[in-house]
Amino acid sequence: MSPEEFRTLGHRTVDWVADYWERLESLPVAPQVEPGQVRRMLPRHPPEHGEPFEALLRDMDGVVVPGLLHWQHPRFLGYFPANTSGAAVLADLLSAGLGVQGMSWSTSPACTELEEHVLDWLVEILGLPDRFRSDGRGGGVIQDTASSALLVALLAALQRAGKGEIRKEGIGSRRFGVYVTGETHSSAVKAAIIAGLGEQAVRHVRTDRDTLALDVAHLQTLVLRDLADGITPLLAVATVGTTSTTAIDPVAAVGQLCRRHGVWLHVDAAYAGVAAVCPELRWLNDGVAEYADSYCTNPHKWLLTTFDCDTFWVADRTWLTEALTLLPEYLRNAASESGRVTDYRNWQVPLGRRFRALKLWAVIRWYGVEGLRRHIRQGVGLAAELARWVRADERFELAAAHPLALVCFRLRTPPGGDADEANERLLHRVNASGTTFLTHSRIDGRVVLRIAVGGTFTRRHHVEQAWQCVGREADRVLQPVPD
Amino acid sequence: MSPEEFRTLGHRTVDWVADYWERLESLPVAPQVEPGQVRRMLPRHPPEHGEPFEALLRDMDGVVVPGLLHWQHPRFLGYFPANTSGAAVLADLLSAGLGVQGMSWSTSPACTELEEHVLDWLVEILGLPDRFRSDGRGGGVIQDTASSALLVALLAALQRAGKGEIRKEGIGSRRFGVYVTGETHSSAVKAAIIAGLGEQAVRHVRTDRDTLALDVAHLQTLVLRDLADGITPLLAVATVGTTSTTAIDPVAAVGQLCRRHGVWLHVDAAYAGVAAVCPELRWLNDGVAEYADSYCTNPHKWLLTTFDCDTFWVADRTWLTEALTLLPEYLRNAASESGRVTDYRNWQVPLGRRFRALKLWAVIRWYGVEGLRRHIRQGVGLAAELARWVRADERFELAAAHPLALVCFRLRTPPGGDADEANERLLHRVNASGTTFLTHSRIDGRVVLRIAVGGTFTRRHHVEQAWQCVGREADRVLQPVPD
Repeated sequence: MSPEEFRTLGHRTVDWVADYWERLESLPVAPQVEPGQVRRMLPRHPPEHGEPFEALLRDMDGVVVPGLLHWQHPRFLGYFPANTSGAAVLADLLSAGLGVQGMSWSTSPACTELEEHVLDWLVEILGLPDRFRSDGRGGGVIQDTASSALLVALLAALQRAGKGEIRKEGIGSRRFGVYVTGETHSSAVKAAIIAGLGEQAVRHVRTDRDTLALDVAHLQTLVLRDLADGITPLLAVATVGTTSTTAIDPVAAVGQLCRRHGVWLHVDAAYAGVAAVCPELRWLNDGVAEYADSYCTNPHKWLLTTFDCDTFWVADRTWLTEALTLLPEYLRNAASESGRVTDYRNWQVPLGRRFRALKLWAVIRWYGVEGLRRHIRQGVGLAAELARWVRADERFELAAAHPLALVCFRLRTPPGGDADEANERLLHRVNASGTTFLTHSRIDGRVVLRIAVGGTFTRRHHVEQAWQCVGREADRVLQPVPD
Repeated sequence: MSPEEFRTLGHRTVDWVADYWERLESLPVAPQVEPGQVRRMLPRHPPEHGEPFEALLRDMDGVVVPGLLHWQHPRFLGYFPANTSGAAVLADLLSAGLGVQGMSWSTSPACTELEEHVLDWLVEILGLPDRFRSDGRGGGVIQDTASSALLVALLAALQRAGKGEIRKEGIGSRRFGVYVTGETHSSAVKAAIIAGLGEQAVRHVRTDRDTLALDVAHLQTLVLRDLADGITPLLAVATVGTTSTTAIDPVAAVGQLCRRHGVWLHVDAAYAGVAAVCPELRWLNDGVAEYADSYCTNPHKWLLTTFDCDTFWVADRTWLTEALTLLPEYLRNAASESGRVTDYRNWQVPLGRRFRALKLWAVIRWYGVEGLRRHIRQGVGLAAELARWVRADERFELAAAHPLALVCFRLRTPPGGDADEANERLLHRVNASGTTFLTHSRIDGRVVLRIAVGGTFTRRHHVEQAWQCVGREADRVLQPVPD
């Protein structure tokens, strides 16, 4: 494709995206497709000869779009939002056009330096501690996801705990404890498996029955038990905004305990961390400044930055880079050897890296910090309003606190009714309606439904329409009538 | 940014990329910047108020572009190419606009099914074995990089070797051997470190002095020694097209040995594998069909597909998914439980995933298989011609075979001259000229220079200009005159 063809087809593709965003509201949020249905519409064999790009755009409409769950739909309220935004999309387009590799400083200095700079900006924007800044011993880096952030945090913790021996010798007969709760993201267990510790290394700390927050007394018991058993307490994950219910672990208390016993404290604020852009929500960071060895939050969830963009900081980058640095001859260069530059390949699992800082830079500049605050406040405000609607409707009950933009609720059922089954039926009916899309979780074994506000295009009337849909379907679940 | 603003600014951004590609040739390939120079041009604090997108585009020109190594420059000949292309960029734009998550089939069926389908297409296009296809026990998946592919291959190998116990128990006192050569990509050692085996688990198999290919007799010695020592031979990496010189390990012979001893064979064809699109290069796959347990190649290197796009296949997906599957309540869904769908989150380290299949689909459709062949043949042909120029110039010698599009050479020096120092000086001068950009490696301890043809925009006259530049600078290195 020549630059001139790219210009023409590029305009058409931009228009396709703009049109898609404009007509999103008219589409069912969730697709009605069976397994294999999309593939059956695709040619069995690849084309021998090139096709016009328009043919692909036609198939976007005819094959792809009908098979998508529309995460950017203004009435998509499932999981957590995965914000995309015009500014981020366009900056990502620039990144794809540049096509540079940021594995080392020398392979594109601006790619590395812009990332360092924007991550320092974000420290300021979110009120994170100065020791995360790149001008001290710490530093920030963009990972693809919070899962990868947690994995490299674990590797850094092993480097520190093993005094550098583990990368040489492997885990071997050393025994470690990793502390999570039943509400911690599954990526913590996955990281323990990947790092060779196995599920057996994972300790499940109890949570408070009401708040679902980590029980520090139980953490202490488990840490002391491990110490007594000759097991090294390695890493604790404190979550700020859990996936099921946005519960918030007591970071400071966890941190004090970690400090006392040399445990690495990783704070996983994947969803909630970005909300600290608002001064009134800055309490989300309580304890982070004093105690966190590493911290992550995902601008690709609720801060308008197209996936993938997990921002991850360490208080002391030495452990991370010592754990992951390898220097084959073909990557040697004078800048790296000068010690004056950051080579981000040593902060992550992969070698290659895209120029992802561009989209974060674009989002911060397009919205300004006040625009980011407005976005977060809108989500929090709509969730608060929704919670009032839930409370006011006697068919429903709130199932958890809603400090941010997620509301967990459930349908009350008549005595003797099966509440879980009714809520599952309600979820199925709501999602099949195409009006909105919700997901579920369980609290204390009981099914709850989740409404996560915060989408880029979600406004008050969308949440209202979604709630009306839930109400309509609840009637049908509670008083079944022939369809 | 409203859809209407997006339309206007999107056209402008597309034009910026088209302009960039058009003027690339007029830019120095490598930047002349000092560490910190880019950051000093950026505002110390983030903007409180939003800025017009045009301000960012201005800074692209004023701050970013001067700080980049231009990987898409037609005279960029360093490392390996990192092909971007119009078709891939536009499909990636569609992906960013859709903003869907492909972690599970149910979170966007088309995202998963298109990926399965296009990976099956690629099996056909590259002449890979049918057992990699998704309709049998195998299957393909897009990873970000070959590093991550190697890591998950290692985890699958551990799952098989440990009969499923290792994900529960960790590595513990089990001892494993991982077999690589000095030419294997550094990600193999990195994977062993990450997986908790440590560098001690890595065995360095000798290579043939001339071909730099893995010495199977030595591999056998190391495997038998490990067996005798009670160490389980776990995984061998056979590379098709090594990073330094595109050396090719004897996959079939390695595979026979692996089969005999239950060793997982991972074939790393990150750079070279895509060349098998040409029937005359299909020999690159020799042995893969019979013996590979896993295989990867990177369309984001030499097959016109913007980073990141590593295509990775396994012959039996069970080991991979059993190693990596976790199912928290909030991800449960009927489709997954039916067993009829693929949930790609269980094939990779991260949970979230972008819709990356779109760009690969677009590239295959835009170029057609014949267009992909033309691209590969152009690179191979230009490299062959370049090698003739090297041979015809008595100042230089070829340093390795050039089966594909990489030519390794060195400057001969007068007896008593320091050849390494002279070649390093030559490299520095060439890169400082801005005309082209090359990188180096070492063969048998001696510095060699690498010219990697195969860029999306690289044509014959660019290689010619680059070679003239090398010749000019060689004169200055060999017969120093005052500058």
